[in-house]
Amino acid sequence: MMSDPNADRPPVTVVGLGLMGQALAAAFLKEGHPTTVWNRSPEKAERLVADGAVLADTLESAVTASPLVIVCVSDYDAVHELIRPVESALAGRVLVNLTTATSTQARETAEWAAQRNIPYLDGAIMAIPPVIGTDGAVLLYSGHKSAFEAHESTLKAIAPAATTYLEEDHGLSSLYDMALLGIMWGILNGFLHGAALLGTAKVKAETFAPLANTMISAITEYVTAYAPQVDESRYEATDATMTVHQAAMEHLAEESEHLGIHSELPRFFKTLADRAVADGHAENSYAAMIELFRKPTA
Amino acid sequence: MMSDPNADRPPVTVVGLGLMGQALAAAFLKEGHPTTVWNRSPEKAERLVADGAVLADTLESAVTASPLVIVCVSDYDAVHELIRPVESALAGRVLVNLTTATSTQARETAEWAAQRNIPYLDGAIMAIPPVIGTDGAVLLYSGHKSAFEAHESTLKAIAPAATTYLEEDHGLSSLYDMALLGIMWGILNGFLHGAALLGTAKVKAETFAPLANTMISAITEYVTAYAPQVDESRYEATDATMTVHQAAMEHLAEESEHLGIHSELPRFFKTLADRAVADGHAENSYAAMIELFRKPTA
Repeated sequence: MMSDPNADRPPVTVVGLGLMGQALAAAFLKEGHPTTVWNRSPEKAERLVADGAVLADTLESAVTASPLVIVCVSDYDAVHELIRPVESALAGRVLVNLTTATSTQARETAEWAAQRNIPYLDGAIMAIPPVIGTDGAVLLYSGHKSAFEAHESTLKAIAPAATTYLEEDHGLSSLYDMALLGIMWGILNGFLHGAALLGTAKVKAETFAPLANTMISAITEYVTAYAPQVDESRYEATDATMTVHQAAMEHLAEESEHLGIHSELPRFFKTLADRAVADGHAENSYAAMIELFRKPTA
Repeated sequence: MMSDPNADRPPVTVVGLGLMGQALAAAFLKEGHPTTVWNRSPEKAERLVADGAVLADTLESAVTASPLVIVCVSDYDAVHELIRPVESALAGRVLVNLTTATSTQARETAEWAAQRNIPYLDGAIMAIPPVIGTDGAVLLYSGHKSAFEAHESTLKAIAPAATTYLEEDHGLSSLYDMALLGIMWGILNGFLHGAALLGTAKVKAETFAPLANTMISAITEYVTAYAPQVDESRYEATDATMTVHQAAMEHLAEESEHLGIHSELPRFFKTLADRAVADGHAENSYAAMIELFRKPTA
């Protein structure tokens, strides 16, 4: 008799079978984990069942099928609607919530889980469904550290190259998620506005993209250099001062206006830089902008 | 007798010895080019002269000392004030202008130079003075192609790894410069706002930076994927739709407000996304934002 190479893979339950939930369950199945699934509309499970998943009759039987229960639904209200009726079944099992949420919602859920003896992890998926299970997927977890360690090898089915534990604070995966998305929009807006600017001279976006990507990669060095300045609240301008940035932003805004494209984005950046300069950061590095971002908007 | 290994290095003239001009001249000297310098205040040349540069008595003698004349001063008015009186001396020599300018100014200067038989290149320095002469320096040139080709090996002293010729349109180096700076501000604002957000949970910027840089590098794949969508004006959402981005932006703005940090940046991004959705791009990819950026701000 052949031994089953997957015999040692721990079972896992996936609750919620939207596009993302289906991708998660498929990734566990692919790695040979006995996978139980549940969804309010059971027809969403058809393809997964054909691939070897077990569709549970009830949410409670789905929960009791595995020591690790992953929930990925539309929002936090939906999470609580699902988990509150099965809290006794969840006690002692690890609950991993991959539903997008605010840090406050994650921390509230953590408190609820702690009171019910449910080891809880809050996670953020930095990937789209087709990327789940590939080296391109980044998954961030925060919360109950020993729960993460106990199930890390199973969770790696979702993000083999980047299954990342942050810290005990359950709100962190959500905050990192938001912070990283903010960077993404910043880059994409910059690239697309630049493509519009170069488009006025008939330069194609595909011509611009490789140089844009060289610049994007080069900026990681600024990020690395500015991080300790932020932590120490000291902003020595070893490169350009805020005044130099201000002038270049004005330049980009005027160029945009002159060429008849959108100028509001560079004007907005300039407004922020103007405020930092007004606050005394004229001769500081761009890292000084952290002081503006730390303050609530008036 | 030993032969001079630098005997074949063509001479070069650098006009304007601010921090950047000094760095440029130093880079040529280091590569063994006979280097003539000129500055309105000659004391700025002292260190360069000690390192082997020749300080010309007059701007005209500086220009006639080399077949390649590089000008790097404060602005375009200063450029014209300098070059107009020596236009006869410049005729037949290659003039490279590395002074920051708008594309219009670069094109006007190109027209002026063409009428006087001065092969002209407009360049943009994507580097700070300490980086000049290292592999970190990126120099973009546009304009007279054969002039670039004739002096490319000399110009590589400034940016050994990235001496880049764009196209004949003299305005392009300036446009690329602006477009790339716009990306830089987008990234830095995103990183610093994210650092402020994570700072509310006592996460240090130095802890955030490596993950931020992983994200930044990952976004180059989106840039590569969106470029052909921009060129073809077709924005199929193979990843997230504008509606999904909109919801996540609202989420970041609310999280920022709730945690008492700056929320204007994510609110502004959301305003832009809202407009794209109102224009019919709800189900399109983020690349559809190009249509907003191509239009003048009302």
